[in-house]
Amino acid sequence: MTDNKPALHTVLSPALLNLYDIDNAIVVIIDVLRATSTIPTALFNGAACVMPVDSVERCIELGKSTNGITAGEREGKVIEGLQHGNSPFEYYPEFIKGKVLVLTTTNGTRLLHMALEKGAKHIVTGSFANLSAVVNYLIGQKQRVILACAAWKNKINIEDTLFAGAVISKVKAYFDINCDSSTIAAALYDEAKDDLYAFIKNRRASHYMRLSGYGLEKDIQHCLITDTANVLPLYEDGKLCIG
Amino acid sequence: MTDNKPALHTVLSPALLNLYDIDNAIVVIIDVLRATSTIPTALFNGAACVMPVDSVERCIELGKSTNGITAGEREGKVIEGLQHGNSPFEYYPEFIKGKVLVLTTTNGTRLLHMALEKGAKHIVTGSFANLSAVVNYLIGQKQRVILACAAWKNKINIEDTLFAGAVISKVKAYFDINCDSSTIAAALYDEAKDDLYAFIKNRRASHYMRLSGYGLEKDIQHCLITDTANVLPLYEDGKLCIG
Repeated sequence: MTDNKPALHTVLSPALLNLYDIDNAIVVIIDVLRATSTIPTALFNGAACVMPVDSVERCIELGKSTNGITAGEREGKVIEGLQHGNSPFEYYPEFIKGKVLVLTTTNGTRLLHMALEKGAKHIVTGSFANLSAVVNYLIGQKQRVILACAAWKNKINIEDTLFAGAVISKVKAYFDINCDSSTIAAALYDEAKDDLYAFIKNRRASHYMRLSGYGLEKDIQHCLITDTANVLPLYEDGKLCIG
Repeated sequence: MTDNKPALHTVLSPALLNLYDIDNAIVVIIDVLRATSTIPTALFNGAACVMPVDSVERCIELGKSTNGITAGEREGKVIEGLQHGNSPFEYYPEFIKGKVLVLTTTNGTRLLHMALEKGAKHIVTGSFANLSAVVNYLIGQKQRVILACAAWKNKINIEDTLFAGAVISKVKAYFDINCDSSTIAAALYDEAKDDLYAFIKNRRASHYMRLSGYGLEKDIQHCLITDTANVLPLYEDGKLCIG
């Protein structure tokens, strides 16, 4: 029944990651609003690399040592002491080309480090902005995959689940998927795919409510468009570079 | 926007329960295959009460002191030292009437005790077997609700998520639901509702695979039928009785 296809699992919250065998798997970190949408955008527009860090202090420190741009937001505002925010729109080519972006995010970075500690073989980041790049990579590698949603403070969210579903809809013929969370993600995507933005808005996704309260609807719409920055951010030695 | 409606949240795995405010909420314990399908069935068929316990030792002990029927399965077989299994079909009226059923289950009982420790105001059990009773109770109480899925060893499962979605589809006008897990459950149910059994079978739900491997397809089909045992098991002082 498996035809020797590699397994694929979806983890809908970082709090569930320890239930899965991460060792030697390819892990896709998913944080659609907005870290893993901004990361491929910066790379696509010419950034030398993106360094994801989990604290403001580390962000400032690495910003100095790499002569990089420091970026991060909390509650929709640029963090004091940093230079830029989390919006993909900030990282246009004329600004980011050739530069190092040091980005502090909460949910996504923490999850990336968890996957690293648990022995992931390769870590990449995924969002609608680079859906095809992720899909092509996973199909090509022919190895066990974990789609890891960053969620919001461990609470499952719609947008990351939707992206997992989008990936599954495109790779399912190549993997053995016996995982209820994957089925749930795929079903959600099936229901929403004709208009992701309308689905999220109408269903009042909690993160939509939070970000739209900060005036970030334009970011949300952009983060749901497919292949706007179709490169593969691959993590190695503390950096995400085009893989 | 809330119209003073009480909030409803869905918790898709016991591992996520600590992210939610359980204190003083009504908690619905959901373990469709098969604990919370068997519990209302036994009560509907005349059991005096059901005592859910989390260990075989405690089950045997309580079975003796209450002169009750001890029941529990692991891997689809009756546990050594106990008398009966977890199938709703075992608890027909001629057998169960007037008796105490002491039932040991893993996922559901543990979750019930967690909800109790976190200060739940009322705890009830829900499954398709008593969908209407649960829905009517929640609408009538007008209090904050947590739909708590027992899952499988903390891994999210389809059948419990589907039941949460079924409840939401019927109570959503009465609650303020700003919870992505609830949205996901409702979307899954929308997609599956025309034929729950076909959905679970076709999507190869992990628990379906496990139970059908033990020859329990008949149980699975039965556990997806609505209102076969339409009573409300309400937990108090270690017992579930009709509320």
